[in-house]
Amino acid sequence: MKAILVRPPKEGVEIKDVKQEEVQNFGKIKIRTLYNGICGTDREIVNGKITFSLSNKNFLVLGHEAIGVVEEGYGNFKEGDLVMPINRRGCGKCLNCLLGRPDFCETGEFVEAGINGMDGFMREYWFDDSRYLVKIPKQIEDIGILAQPLADIEKSVEEIINTQKRVPSWTCDDGTYNCRKVLILGSGPVGMLFSLIFRTIGFEVWISNRREPNEIEQTVIEETESNFFNSSSGMEKINQKFDVIIDATGADASILDKVFPLLKRNGVLGLFGFPISGSFGVDFRSIQEMVLSNKVIIGLVNGQKPHYQQAVTHLASWKTLYPKTSTLLITRTVPITDENQVINVLREKQEKEIKIRIAW
Amino acid sequence: MKAILVRPPKEGVEIKDVKQEEVQNFGKIKIRTLYNGICGTDREIVNGKITFSLSNKNFLVLGHEAIGVVEEGYGNFKEGDLVMPINRRGCGKCLNCLLGRPDFCETGEFVEAGINGMDGFMREYWFDDSRYLVKIPKQIEDIGILAQPLADIEKSVEEIINTQKRVPSWTCDDGTYNCRKVLILGSGPVGMLFSLIFRTIGFEVWISNRREPNEIEQTVIEETESNFFNSSSGMEKINQKFDVIIDATGADASILDKVFPLLKRNGVLGLFGFPISGSFGVDFRSIQEMVLSNKVIIGLVNGQKPHYQQAVTHLASWKTLYPKTSTLLITRTVPITDENQVINVLREKQEKEIKIRIAW
Amino acid sequence: MKAILVRPPKEGVEIKDVKQEEVQNFGKIKIRTLYNGICGTDREIVNGKITFSLSNKNFLVLGHEAIGVVEEGYGNFKEGDLVMPINRRGCGKCLNCLLGRPDFCETGEFVEAGINGMDGFMREYWFDDSRYLVKIPKQIEDIGILAQPLADIEKSVEEIINTQKRVPSWTCDDGTYNCRKVLILGSGPVGMLFSLIFRTIGFEVWISNRREPNEIEQTVIEETESNFFNSSSGMEKINQKFDVIIDATGADASILDKVFPLLKRNGVLGLFGFPISGSFGVDFRSIQEMVLSNKVIIGLVNGQKPHYQQAVTHLASWKTLYPKTSTLLITRTVPITDENQVINVLREKQEKEIKIRIAW
Amino acid sequence: MKAILVRPPKEGVEIKDVKQEEVQNFGKIKIRTLYNGICGTDREIVNGKITFSLSNKNFLVLGHEAIGVVEEGYGNFKEGDLVMPINRRGCGKCLNCLLGRPDFCETGEFVEAGINGMDGFMREYWFDDSRYLVKIPKQIEDIGILAQPLADIEKSVEEIINTQKRVPSWTCDDGTYNCRKVLILGSGPVGMLFSLIFRTIGFEVWISNRREPNEIEQTVIEETESNFFNSSSGMEKINQKFDVIIDATGADASILDKVFPLLKRNGVLGLFGFPISGSFGVDFRSIQEMVLSNKVIIGLVNGQKPHYQQAVTHLASWKTLYPKTSTLLITRTVPITDENQVINVLREKQEKEIKIRIAW
Repeated sequence: MKAILVRPPKEGVEIKDVKQEEVQNFGKIKIRTLYNGICGTDREIVNGKITFSLSNKNFLVLGHEAIGVVEEGYGNFKEGDLVMPINRRGCGKCLNCLLGRPDFCETGEFVEAGINGMDGFMREYWFDDSRYLVKIPKQIEDIGILAQPLADIEKSVEEIINTQKRVPSWTCDDGTYNCRKVLILGSGPVGMLFSLIFRTIGFEVWISNRREPNEIEQTVIEETESNFFNSSSGMEKINQKFDVIIDATGADASILDKVFPLLKRNGVLGLFGFPISGSFGVDFRSIQEMVLSNKVIIGLVNGQKPHYQQAVTHLASWKTLYPKTSTLLITRTVPITDENQVINVLREKQEKEIKIRIAW
Repeated sequence: MKAILVRPPKEGVEIKDVKQEEVQNFGKIKIRTLYNGICGTDREIVNGKITFSLSNKNFLVLGHEAIGVVEEGYGNFKEGDLVMPINRRGCGKCLNCLLGRPDFCETGEFVEAGINGMDGFMREYWFDDSRYLVKIPKQIEDIGILAQPLADIEKSVEEIINTQKRVPSWTCDDGTYNCRKVLILGSGPVGMLFSLIFRTIGFEVWISNRREPNEIEQTVIEETESNFFNSSSGMEKINQKFDVIIDATGADASILDKVFPLLKRNGVLGLFGFPISGSFGVDFRSIQEMVLSNKVIIGLVNGQKPHYQQAVTHLASWKTLYPKTSTLLITRTVPITDENQVINVLREKQEKEIKIRIAW
Repeated sequence: MKAILVRPPKEGVEIKDVKQEEVQNFGKIKIRTLYNGICGTDREIVNGKITFSLSNKNFLVLGHEAIGVVEEGYGNFKEGDLVMPINRRGCGKCLNCLLGRPDFCETGEFVEAGINGMDGFMREYWFDDSRYLVKIPKQIEDIGILAQPLADIEKSVEEIINTQKRVPSWTCDDGTYNCRKVLILGSGPVGMLFSLIFRTIGFEVWISNRREPNEIEQTVIEETESNFFNSSSGMEKINQKFDVIIDATGADASILDKVFPLLKRNGVLGLFGFPISGSFGVDFRSIQEMVLSNKVIIGLVNGQKPHYQQAVTHLASWKTLYPKTSTLLITRTVPITDENQVINVLREKQEKEIKIRIAW
Repeated sequence: MKAILVRPPKEGVEIKDVKQEEVQNFGKIKIRTLYNGICGTDREIVNGKITFSLSNKNFLVLGHEAIGVVEEGYGNFKEGDLVMPINRRGCGKCLNCLLGRPDFCETGEFVEAGINGMDGFMREYWFDDSRYLVKIPKQIEDIGILAQPLADIEKSVEEIINTQKRVPSWTCDDGTYNCRKVLILGSGPVGMLFSLIFRTIGFEVWISNRREPNEIEQTVIEETESNFFNSSSGMEKINQKFDVIIDATGADASILDKVFPLLKRNGVLGLFGFPISGSFGVDFRSIQEMVLSNKVIIGLVNGQKPHYQQAVTHLASWKTLYPKTSTLLITRTVPITDENQVINVLREKQEKEIKIRIAW
């Protein structure tokens, strides 16, 4: 069958025919791939920027975002069902992995499909186990590929809400989060999805970037009644404070110096983006302020099965409530038959891209 | 303006003109009524079965389910917004009411619109405060009236999930609730809405009634992949046990004797329906079993603003995922101009009714 | 070695010599028994009232409460350390047992030392695993045997507190539980220990029995600033309501009919005692009341290692704060050499007994 | 009456006679002071290092740690009861303050006795309200003054435990915290009290300082079975990782650079000490690590009434379990009649001081 292969740590990507015995499979349920989503991590692998271990082979099947159709069912999964695989799989040893939550793996010995230690899903078909599959209703087939990146963000928001249970009352005087404000740094796909979830649970949402919003961003912001802040002339000009600040930039870490003073008492700075340079300098006065005002800085990573399921519910609700937004989030579909284009989108971020998918 | 009035404890209902000074208002935002929902409580008031106090008047405006359109806005609520009022309002004294959660009022001195101590919303317009209003997106105007009864059920399911946090792990080995089973007694609107929420959070759902499902029920069950059990030849024939059992019948309490043995270890029997006769006999062996297996019986009542907002998200998601179901749940719309019909539906439950609404 | 044996379901008890190969052991750490506590369950086994399975033998070593001294150490447990074994051990299958919490075992396939499926600790020595051992500081050797029954009650109170997290605020306006009241039915050892924990976490405590308090009870009540209510002329005469009611009687279940109306809004009826007759009749009006006021009835059973450790802290604190009480709780120590007396206290409850222990 | 006065922002301290009308009082219960504790904050005020607002007077009564005896009782507080006042009092506006938890005040408009906006307790007597008083049992009168600093640490540990509820299982496979390790930076009174609480809840405890332990520290470490690490030749030589790291130094912030790499996956860095110089540089690689491993940095401050009550229980338990330690923690008692000494201990930290108290 056809598959998209990488040979890390060497850069490069190939579309090739492989035999079933050459690639890993994980269960009894046969799934034919319909779509793969492409994200920044795929491109870092293709461009040789991520180093990682392979499993007894000289290549790895790329791809951690996929929707497929069941061809040979088992248990609750029947022929014709649409499914999405969960990409991180547990160490089998620590309690969190036994609880189905390798996002909190304590040993670090988990594997990640198409990324580390496990073949991915950019191939014609694979076999999987029901434990690692989530049903994607046909009604959201068009936007379903977003459930994978969205799951990571569902987990992150859940973790922030859980962390804030340390505060005797973090809900407002009407029992909601309507008095809470979040500032999201970065208006890429991650920033957009954070903004959608925080709007859904009732927050006032501010998205910031160092430029004016583009057309897509403008549409999303209007439809979801969010706010955009152009920080090019100084973050402090936003002139208000926030209960939650999310770093969804993956840019230079020094941006955090500028936003930390914008955090309210009992506030949370959530780190989701993966900075690739710079340093966040927390001087003694900022530490005093953290102590006196119960502030938290928290690292946020990886959603698991409950978050994929919640992502499905949210996508379905946004299709009703934000029809323009949900259409705009899939910016392009490239057929696997057009190999040049596939290679191209796997190599380089495209103009105004939110989510690009490959159709098999 | 026109209003639907009752004069409890006398039975009866009238459509009459009242002056604005004669009826209570609660804030600055003027709302013109679009729809009222009708529920069993309204009929019990009309038929003189519920006794309660009035507030310095010889009548009460009926109606605790409403959607209206803002005519004079204030704060976040603008002209043209669709809104739903929250029907129970706090005592202003206890901590739970100060936290916006009169569903857990400790004094019992809360009021309920159209039911107890406060004029309801079956009238041309009313004035309200933003604290008690929830926005209803135009995209779900058609089914939005369900948000009020649904909020009560959102709260109930949330309370059950909260209660089960006493169990070290109540989620399954994949982190979800997919291994958990719920039995819902009663297939009326309450049973249906419970079933929809439990499906949404991943439970296997069984709905039971003492007959075969009717056509609407059959459609909902198929679309939501739930199960129906006809208990007419004995509840025990269901031949399996459940993690949660919900009484949504409001029938004779003795039904609980029959279902209690079907509860698994660490299980919860949730009481939502309002039985009007009979007794639930928990004999010493059942108590031993409760003790040995950590079982819980819990009373469930009233959703508040966070639950209304969650209901909106769920309704929007069901409109995408369960298009037939969401249409079928509104079984009839009666125009206020057809006064005979309005009086009729307020007096008597209709054949195959799920939710009937009055359109203004 | 000497051991106390039972042969259920036959009644009777013997002190006999057994060989090490004839009895079960559970690990590498050798422990010489210092004390065994005696409780009602032991007597029900001795008197043939509890039926249960044995493990491939025609006898069972009795005893689930013990303190011993380590003779051959391993890991953190050194020669000379005082230890207490945990009596219930998990099924090895369900998530709660994997989390060290067989008190919430989902399969029911746990075993209990000296009770069901596993030899107990009324013997000269046994071998055990560190996972099942709790250190008993020498400073509380005199009252340490209480840690086992106390652990069950620590778990129960923890579970009630966890269950009440469903209430937005169940703490008072000073952040404590000082405004909460508990009624404890029964003034035996279980009732006394419940009262001590509830006092420790700040509750106002009422203990009730159908007679005046005896001298020991009077001392405990005075020292701990609790209250006693003689219910012989009617429970309702107590003339106040409670946030928590605990059944610690193990008497006829019909007592619950009388106390249920004493429960406040959002209140919890905790079932700990094991009734042996009668029925608790929850009529439809009581169910309506449960629904309208968010009431809970909950079964409470078995403490595990975290609760044993908390019991040690509490016993140490009470030794300082309630010196009379902590002395009085151990009502008698019988030497194993006095076999007649040992058999006698194993057969029959003694006058004014709180906790009797056997000294080896 | 005699009182100890400061006139911030001017440095200096005086023992003077003041009239009752000149100083603030807070309720109906008259309390005669028995002891005041002295802490670093008092010395920073005396030495002019803390700037703050006064309330319409040209002086402030110093002192936020006190035990007194009730002379005129009210409600639950009777003549002769020993009591401790809570030092921080709420803003009266935000929900957390209404819930009795000004440690999480959202407005920042709380006051602190003897520190900011409210007269303290270094005076012969004061009047207070039951809401702000905690009973100190006579059995711990000798060490009771520790309940005030201990309350802050009780709150901090509780907040860490609450924050870790974000982890699906943070307890070990025996349900306890026995597999968890904490590193406490600093072996002063704060470090010692943190170590005592973490030992009590089952952690393995490491205390570090840049020197060998002194005699008192050595005794505490042995009695509580903790560990001491001399970090003078490099923090990394400790050669192990920790689930929790607490900064209890109040030294230069750069120490955090050295300990942050010692934090395990899902770990928490708790900031309690108040650094007065330096900077904690979180470079992009550390942020990546925080993201990938769910790490948290959290500011910890101020205990409230529930924490004072828990502190009383813990002090009582330590008096039994750690008799040497609990005696050693009060390093000196200075009579108020010896004014020179009082002034001296208020100005300068003493050799090997843990807690010094003034006796009235």
